[in-house]
Amino acid sequence: MRGIALFGKVHFLDTTLRDGEQTPGVSLSLEEKVEIAQRLDALGVDVIEAGSAVTSEGERRSMKAVADEGLRAEVCSYVRARTDDVDLALECDVGSIHLVVPVSDLHIRSKLRSDRDSVMASAVEVTEYAKDHGLVVELSGEDASRADEPFLRSLYREGIDAGADRLCYCDTVGVLVAERAFEVFKSLSDLPAPVSVHCHDDFGMATANTVAALRGGASMAHVTVNGIGERGGNTSLEEVVMTLESLYGLKTEIKCLELYSLSRLVSRLMGVPVAPNKAIVGENAFTHEAGIHVHGLIADTSTYEPIHPETVGRKRRIVLGKHAGRSSVELALRELGIECDKGELSEILSRVKDLGDKGKRVTDADLQTIAEIVLSIQKVPKVKLDEFTVVSGNRATPTASVRITVNGTEMLEAGTGVGPVDAAINAIRRAISGVRDVRLEEYHVDAITGGTSALVEVWVTMAMGDRSITARGAGADIIMASVEAVLEGINRLMQLEEDG
Amino acid sequence: MRGIALFGKVHFLDTTLRDGEQTPGVSLSLEEKVEIAQRLDALGVDVIEAGSAVTSEGERRSMKAVADEGLRAEVCSYVRARTDDVDLALECDVGSIHLVVPVSDLHIRSKLRSDRDSVMASAVEVTEYAKDHGLVVELSGEDASRADEPFLRSLYREGIDAGADRLCYCDTVGVLVAERAFEVFKSLSDLPAPVSVHCHDDFGMATANTVAALRGGASMAHVTVNGIGERGGNTSLEEVVMTLESLYGLKTEIKCLELYSLSRLVSRLMGVPVAPNKAIVGENAFTHEAGIHVHGLIADTSTYEPIHPETVGRKRRIVLGKHAGRSSVELALRELGIECDKGELSEILSRVKDLGDKGKRVTDADLQTIAEIVLSIQKVPKVKLDEFTVVSGNRATPTASVRITVNGTEMLEAGTGVGPVDAAINAIRRAISGVRDVRLEEYHVDAITGGTSALVEVWVTMAMGDRSITARGAGADIIMASVEAVLEGINRLMQLEEDG
Repeated sequence: MRGIALFGKVHFLDTTLRDGEQTPGVSLSLEEKVEIAQRLDALGVDVIEAGSAVTSEGERRSMKAVADEGLRAEVCSYVRARTDDVDLALECDVGSIHLVVPVSDLHIRSKLRSDRDSVMASAVEVTEYAKDHGLVVELSGEDASRADEPFLRSLYREGIDAGADRLCYCDTVGVLVAERAFEVFKSLSDLPAPVSVHCHDDFGMATANTVAALRGGASMAHVTVNGIGERGGNTSLEEVVMTLESLYGLKTEIKCLELYSLSRLVSRLMGVPVAPNKAIVGENAFTHEAGIHVHGLIADTSTYEPIHPETVGRKRRIVLGKHAGRSSVELALRELGIECDKGELSEILSRVKDLGDKGKRVTDADLQTIAEIVLSIQKVPKVKLDEFTVVSGNRATPTASVRITVNGTEMLEAGTGVGPVDAAINAIRRAISGVRDVRLEEYHVDAITGGTSALVEVWVTMAMGDRSITARGAGADIIMASVEAVLEGINRLMQLEEDG
Repeated sequence: MRGIALFGKVHFLDTTLRDGEQTPGVSLSLEEKVEIAQRLDALGVDVIEAGSAVTSEGERRSMKAVADEGLRAEVCSYVRARTDDVDLALECDVGSIHLVVPVSDLHIRSKLRSDRDSVMASAVEVTEYAKDHGLVVELSGEDASRADEPFLRSLYREGIDAGADRLCYCDTVGVLVAERAFEVFKSLSDLPAPVSVHCHDDFGMATANTVAALRGGASMAHVTVNGIGERGGNTSLEEVVMTLESLYGLKTEIKCLELYSLSRLVSRLMGVPVAPNKAIVGENAFTHEAGIHVHGLIADTSTYEPIHPETVGRKRRIVLGKHAGRSSVELALRELGIECDKGELSEILSRVKDLGDKGKRVTDADLQTIAEIVLSIQKVPKVKLDEFTVVSGNRATPTASVRITVNGTEMLEAGTGVGPVDAAINAIRRAISGVRDVRLEEYHVDAITGGTSALVEVWVTMAMGDRSITARGAGADIIMASVEAVLEGINRLMQLEEDG
């Protein structure tokens, strides 16, 4: 849409493994760090900040393992302005350091209990020390956005004279705004070294500030996958990349197709969930419910999608609820192999909306039940639960028994498991196995918060042959809710099969 | 930090109950809609878009209930350019309509299969119709950011002539960038009606774009709590408000103190989780782990916090992990009433980091165990689990028995519950009750994804008197993990009490 005139070549320093891992409560094992580093390298980032060597012995082992992987990307360690930090970084075999020096008077006085001259002196000393030891040095001004600009400039100049290869401007507490980021980087563009931008998202503007800095002349953006990091997090890799690619027409070196799978990997390994409404990588980023929108999408997906989901390795998803329209219900029914006339469709739509009005997400199983009622298909459940018991304890192997009727034949089975839910599901699968090969493909329980009597919602994806279906169970008893969801799924699958 | 010269008075239209509720799978009951509307009104927003009257019968009942609350804020319905949509809005007693007219050729041709002249004609017709029926009209250009600007201007002018009170510019698929938002709104500022800005967050820049539009001359921002909405969501209320207040020094009419509790309410009622790294309202927005940062914070909280958490109704939280430093561990030990010398502190810190290196979040109970080992306090557990059995089923009331030793005395108790976990915890509480009054204040299970044998992590907050403590249990069996967490918490509380 826009010209690329303002941008030079954009580089990326990914700090998922340093700033990202500083997310409270997050810690990666050595293997996990290496796996993420490999994926970042394959994605095409230029620099991987693998951690902070001073953190711990375990951190250094992990960082060394990343450095020894022989990646294409430069591997970097965070260091403070201390030569012993540099020594620890050298132990890890990294190729570069992100040398972070507090530059605001607030940080210099309150945190360091020091003064500008001492900070300047140690920045120069450590830069020279690191250069003498063969490291690439990115000299970074911590809290630069609250620093005195003349002091910052003089520190950058002294750093360049001492051998610094790159500079970095950190918006440590996220107080930059886009127009100022642009001005600041324009004014720094006369410095004889490339300048990176490092933003935090405390006000939700890290992406816009980073893009503005790049327009102003920054050559490298510091980013993390999913925008993770301390407090509000850092600048989100995927948001900056897709903004440059899609809104400014700038081709980056990033393999956008890999963005979504990398997002999932980082979320899983770090245990930091991604909000469903997160741009690009959130569960809902390419999900549509509202009827009128689905209508528009069927005509042309660009009406309600700024980019094709496939661009970032994703697929479009249509879900039903109270905002569902004729088009979306018709589409979903077609996928379930159900045909109906206009009048029936209206009635099904109205019942889907009723269920939506009650605050429910409408599953495939729900839609099928509604359709059957409306189409007067009186179906006897294929599988019916007669009796179910489970025993568990600290000295008992979790054991469940089920008596179920499958197509009119009574089956009695028992099973054990690692816990009572597992035992129950195993018993049911055994009972069914003589009749059909049903697989539990996914089992999900939403986070339970409140008391032990809080409502639990269980979602399962069940499969038989090449068909799969979602179903739900709910209640205060997690075992019963799980059993209910699984039986519902099995019933639907067997009915689908019968309907051909 | 900056002057307010560029801004006029900023108004807010909150669309949590319309665009926010269009989040796939979300649907509010009437009572929930009213509760959120009341809270938005108390917060100080100017307009509450309560829904879209055409959606369903249930939606209209809820909207009418909101309109009949007698709120200070204007209550608004979304309508399309159809007089029958306006009729439905009138049924709901709303005071205003957000009249949305597609204005890009893409939307006009692909979605509506219409042309510019017809769109213009119906916009004028419906505006006049609504004005004739006493409604305030905000005439909104859908997909305005991809529309032909001269056409958009002529539509706005015709709308004003037809009686429209306000205009709105929608960045429907989130393709605006800050510098363009500023220019666009500057160019619209000569129109003789106030213009609102409505942004979507598909590239993570909705907040920056909205702020840029307000700088350019927009008088009202359309926002949602937590930035919820379709796909990547809408502009986040809390981010825009705090940016204006903290970064531009502009006083809004919003009661910032209520922002966090409203965020929690909306997340809970809508079932849409907030990412821990969400600005302002995320769990981690004011949480600190890294040792060096806690050191800075102790000196001056503004070193690593752009605003005081209390400003938005929150508290600061310090957590331990592999990045923990001396200061943070010392602070946490002090809160647990444990004193130690420098050498002991170093050893405790090193063990906390070891646990962190293994990828664990360090709970109070973990820290206490480590401290006890280091300080050679050989403590016998106060409460020991001897035997535990639970039975559940579709024809059995969940029932648990426990045999535990409390301070050397064996206790045997049984309990029932709504599910097996509830029964187990009830049995334990009964057994303990003769000795101590222990309360389970919070019970949390992280979302379980994968199979039925996936690892489950249970977190509990237990309290006795005015002391409370967190503890964790983990395993593939949700019942055993819950029992473990609760017993761990009880043990710690009883030991704390003994230590005074």
